Amino acid sequence: MCELLGMSANVPTDICFSFTGFLHRGGGTGPHRDGWGIAFYEAGGYRDFRDPHPSVRSPIARLISDYPIKSHIVISHIRQANVGGVRLANTHPFTREMWGRTWCYAHNGQLEGWQTLPLVDYQPVGDTDSEHAFCWLLATLREHFPRAPADVTDEVPKEQYLPLWQLLHGLCEQLRSQGVFNLLLADGEFLYTYCSTKLAHTTRRAPFGKAELSDAELTINFAEHTTPDDVVSVIATEPLTHNEAWTRMEPGELLVWRHGHIQARFVSGSSPMAG
Amino acid sequence: MCELLGMSANVPTDICFSFTGFLHRGGGTGPHRDGWGIAFYEAGGYRDFRDPHPSVRSPIARLISDYPIKSHIVISHIRQANVGGVRLANTHPFTREMWGRTWCYAHNGQLEGWQTLPLVDYQPVGDTDSEHAFCWLLATLREHFPRAPADVTDEVPKEQYLPLWQLLHGLCEQLRSQGVFNLLLADGEFLYTYCSTKLAHTTRRAPFGKAELSDAELTINFAEHTTPDDVVSVIATEPLTHNEAWTRMEPGELLVWRHGHIQARFVSGSSPMAG
Repeated sequence: MCELLGMSANVPTDICFSFTGFLHRGGGTGPHRDGWGIAFYEAGGYRDFRDPHPSVRSPIARLISDYPIKSHIVISHIRQANVGGVRLANTHPFTREMWGRTWCYAHNGQLEGWQTLPLVDYQPVGDTDSEHAFCWLLATLREHFPRAPADVTDEVPKEQYLPLWQLLHGLCEQLRSQGVFNLLLADGEFLYTYCSTKLAHTTRRAPFGKAELSDAELTINFAEHTTPDDVVSVIATEPLTHNEAWTRMEPGELLVWRHGHIQARFVSGSSPMAG
Repeated sequence: MCELLGMSANVPTDICFSFTGFLHRGGGTGPHRDGWGIAFYEAGGYRDFRDPHPSVRSPIARLISDYPIKSHIVISHIRQANVGGVRLANTHPFTREMWGRTWCYAHNGQLEGWQTLPLVDYQPVGDTDSEHAFCWLLATLREHFPRAPADVTDEVPKEQYLPLWQLLHGLCEQLRSQGVFNLLLADGEFLYTYCSTKLAHTTRRAPFGKAELSDAELTINFAEHTTPDDVVSVIATEPLTHNEAWTRMEPGELLVWRHGHIQARFVSGSSPMAG
């Protein structure tokens, strides 16, 4: 299985601490030697760094650990290849543009019968089940929502986004029925996290304390790096720290994040619940 | 004016030497302080590194100078902002997927009346004339060629690609009529270079000699880094070296590169010439 790491924050925040623990799983404490990637949304822009080599030995991964890129949303992925060879074109996260926003996608799991998911607007560059499913998912959203439901300002127009989120939840449920589909997805406004088997989250906010990584010998005192209004949520396949409260998501659960807060929650077979 | 750098090679080649001279133009020997980016095509995959800060002080640029990424096609850009603020979303190169290939685009110049170029399949993420023109250009190609004209193997199917290249040349000519439009464009198979005012190229092949950078004190003996069959072409706004033969392109000239060789050449108001 691959490993996923996501972040949603209300102020531009660097992920150096969490990423340091996470990247040790790429051939260090974990078996995920088949590439890694990390994507940052910064002030309306997007960039990602991807490498088809193990993250523990990657000079680019070391740069990212040391160079604080401040971001509202981060998505990262360490790969253990199942479908598709170990090469750059198969390295997550994948991106496509829709509505003038850069969409970013990382998947953990494996799907059956993904080859028959129809492709319309987007075509895979590589040959993974993950990218194929992404192209299908995004084109299906686009078919129903040729434009963004609304601009997002300080106030989230939830009423207008609810039909989109419900559709996204339904599509995730369909993919879960075809195998294992743990998902991180973002468009620069929202971070979507969907759990098929394994995903956990924690929210850091005042009063900030110390956190201790599970995968590397590193402790951080967030009180030294934050202001009292900061809200930073971290989502990962497995909890990254010993001494913080992590909530495990349930199978079929979709969370919509913005600025570190849960905006909406959808669970299997039920109607949405406000966050 | 921005600065462009491109490479087309018949073997995976690193651009460290040329990039070292080039990045000194980003706030060092040149005035281009408003961000930079570089894109690599590697074994069917694509990745780019972009930074909205001056390249001479960028830790990511230093990494790229030191870390040899081997590639068939490279596109790089140093920005001096005219249209659009200095931010990540306005930092070249821009990318979109078409035909299951990642298209990469970098532009030097400034356009008039670009706001009225119609947008269909692709929407800009930032607010530059460059990205708007890219979205228009790619959608227009896609309208006429919903699929790639042919697969590209060792043998380039020139007959099948000729109509595409002619259309591309026509679109470049239209954009040149709206201002200054020096272009580097690639899809992983071909590198396209179009000259509006300034673009020069040189081809390195056996017998390899020494080259000396114009912008930094660095000399390389390519004979120590190459095999006799290597063919590496470098394209830049201004020649990067003192002691190599550079050919300046003429206004309205489009060159199609593959594996370091010119596949086709189109000049203003004339029919195409085989390379």
